[in-house]
Amino acid sequence: MATKKKRASGGGPSSMKRFQSAESQRRYARQAREAGKKIGFVPTMGAFHKGHLSLIRKARRQNDMVVVSIFVNPLQFGPDEDFDRYPRDLARDLDLAREAGIDAAFIPEPSELYPPAFSSKVTVGPLSERMCGAKRPGHFDGVCTVVLKLLGIVQPHRVYLGEKDAQQLVVLQRMVADLNVDVKVVSCPTVREKDGLAMSSRNAYLSPEHREQAGRLYEALRMAQREILMGQMRDPAKLESRMRGLITEESEIEIEYIEMVDPETLEPRPVLVGRVLIALAASLGETRLIDNITVNVPGGRMAEGFGSAAK
Amino acid sequence: MATKKKRASGGGPSSMKRFQSAESQRRYARQAREAGKKIGFVPTMGAFHKGHLSLIRKARRQNDMVVVSIFVNPLQFGPDEDFDRYPRDLARDLDLAREAGIDAAFIPEPSELYPPAFSSKVTVGPLSERMCGAKRPGHFDGVCTVVLKLLGIVQPHRVYLGEKDAQQLVVLQRMVADLNVDVKVVSCPTVREKDGLAMSSRNAYLSPEHREQAGRLYEALRMAQREILMGQMRDPAKLESRMRGLITEESEIEIEYIEMVDPETLEPRPVLVGRVLIALAASLGETRLIDNITVNVPGGRMAEGFGSAAK
Repeated sequence: MATKKKRASGGGPSSMKRFQSAESQRRYARQAREAGKKIGFVPTMGAFHKGHLSLIRKARRQNDMVVVSIFVNPLQFGPDEDFDRYPRDLARDLDLAREAGIDAAFIPEPSELYPPAFSSKVTVGPLSERMCGAKRPGHFDGVCTVVLKLLGIVQPHRVYLGEKDAQQLVVLQRMVADLNVDVKVVSCPTVREKDGLAMSSRNAYLSPEHREQAGRLYEALRMAQREILMGQMRDPAKLESRMRGLITEESEIEIEYIEMVDPETLEPRPVLVGRVLIALAASLGETRLIDNITVNVPGGRMAEGFGSAAK
Repeated sequence: MATKKKRASGGGPSSMKRFQSAESQRRYARQAREAGKKIGFVPTMGAFHKGHLSLIRKARRQNDMVVVSIFVNPLQFGPDEDFDRYPRDLARDLDLAREAGIDAAFIPEPSELYPPAFSSKVTVGPLSERMCGAKRPGHFDGVCTVVLKLLGIVQPHRVYLGEKDAQQLVVLQRMVADLNVDVKVVSCPTVREKDGLAMSSRNAYLSPEHREQAGRLYEALRMAQREILMGQMRDPAKLESRMRGLITEESEIEIEYIEMVDPETLEPRPVLVGRVLIALAASLGETRLIDNITVNVPGGRMAEGFGSAAK
């Protein structure tokens, strides 16, 4: 493994391709497919951390070719959001990607994906309007639109998405199913810092003090998981209140939402049985963070009368 | 040619496949593609006339395999429109398709394309809101959504669309470009009855009297074309007024719109120079008909100062 890495990142000529035009990336995909190669695709906004690299490595294991896109998508940022200051470090990203052994990087300019006449939009209904969508109107439309475009360009057999963005994952799975896109969505577990904070490119915004407080978010999710699994907690309102206490006590964290929902429909669970996605969003100063955990409550089958707990 | 037709429609076993499930149609597409075959696709709502058959024949000439879909798409009909009474004659359609030598027919039930959890939508902005879109809100969203789904299922290299539905053609070309769908859109000239009436499945609704009057629509389009090309007519308002006179004089035709627009942006042409799409919609009793003609006005380059007439 170490040897491989060294070879890939060594001074010799790398075989990693870089494409800026959709047409050249697509020609590459067509050739790979004609040669019978399976293509794995990791769409990113760059500013790589270990989470991205875990997606790339999984794609590497499961496919013949791995394509990564690096594109900070203006369409998914609101007017008051951090599009301009979103971290960008293309040289470092490309080094890391090369080291991880990808075959091609697609790095389009915004004008390549959104030329002046561009006027189409992909929307996934109610799933997009809850949770993060309530605070970020249009965000998931932007995500769906760019991901559909990227899938049309990169033409992968499998696309790799992180579980940290739980709602994004559900929305994109819905889009892929609804629009009959011929790709398998592979979800990958969240990678965390030592204190449990979910890896995110936005963590770089945090002051040292805020960074320390940010660990509370995962702490609260783990507490909630324990309460449900060990303590027989079934009341979402009560559990949310305990989580709020843990997160906000002597911290500057402002909670945007804590939701306990069905992991597929994102509908609130009135009783904590079956599979429950506990998701939250919070701000620390200017920095917005999200995280989540999924709990499988034993006994859900009996309590609900169907097999959701057995999945 | 005649011999070929006879063989295909003869009593022997036909090689035409029929698929009702998206998954089986998709498997068929994947196998064809893996075998290096080019797939031509004709999406239809059935009730075939010579226009459909001309699309199929063109697809037959240009591809290794031809797939036709027959699906009256509920998503593109308004609540007060003719979804229920839209003509359906699957047995006849399949005979005609078999005779024309198609390889596969995709005939899904509505529940196959729109299961209960379905909640996605594809929208093409301003192009969809003008002309027919003004009268039929949501119509083109329904068209775009189903066509994108069908393209994901049938996975064609080329898709064949009739020029009679001029706005639909422009909207779908925009969608394909905007969403980087890897398919070539091939447009096919309108096929007409002897008196010039554009072939349409909805012509079957017309009473004999209305059927006779319906010929006026194309007559007016031809008159407009002549006026522009021969008579140096450059004023859209004046020309529209002449067309209205010709169409409505002693007829029961009610004009919904007559538009003279840029064939790509569908923006009204203030002066009739360059390429001009003249499109109209009209009703005869309960029956809504559309038609159009494209005129290339020589001298557009000089008059406009750019090369649109030279295209």
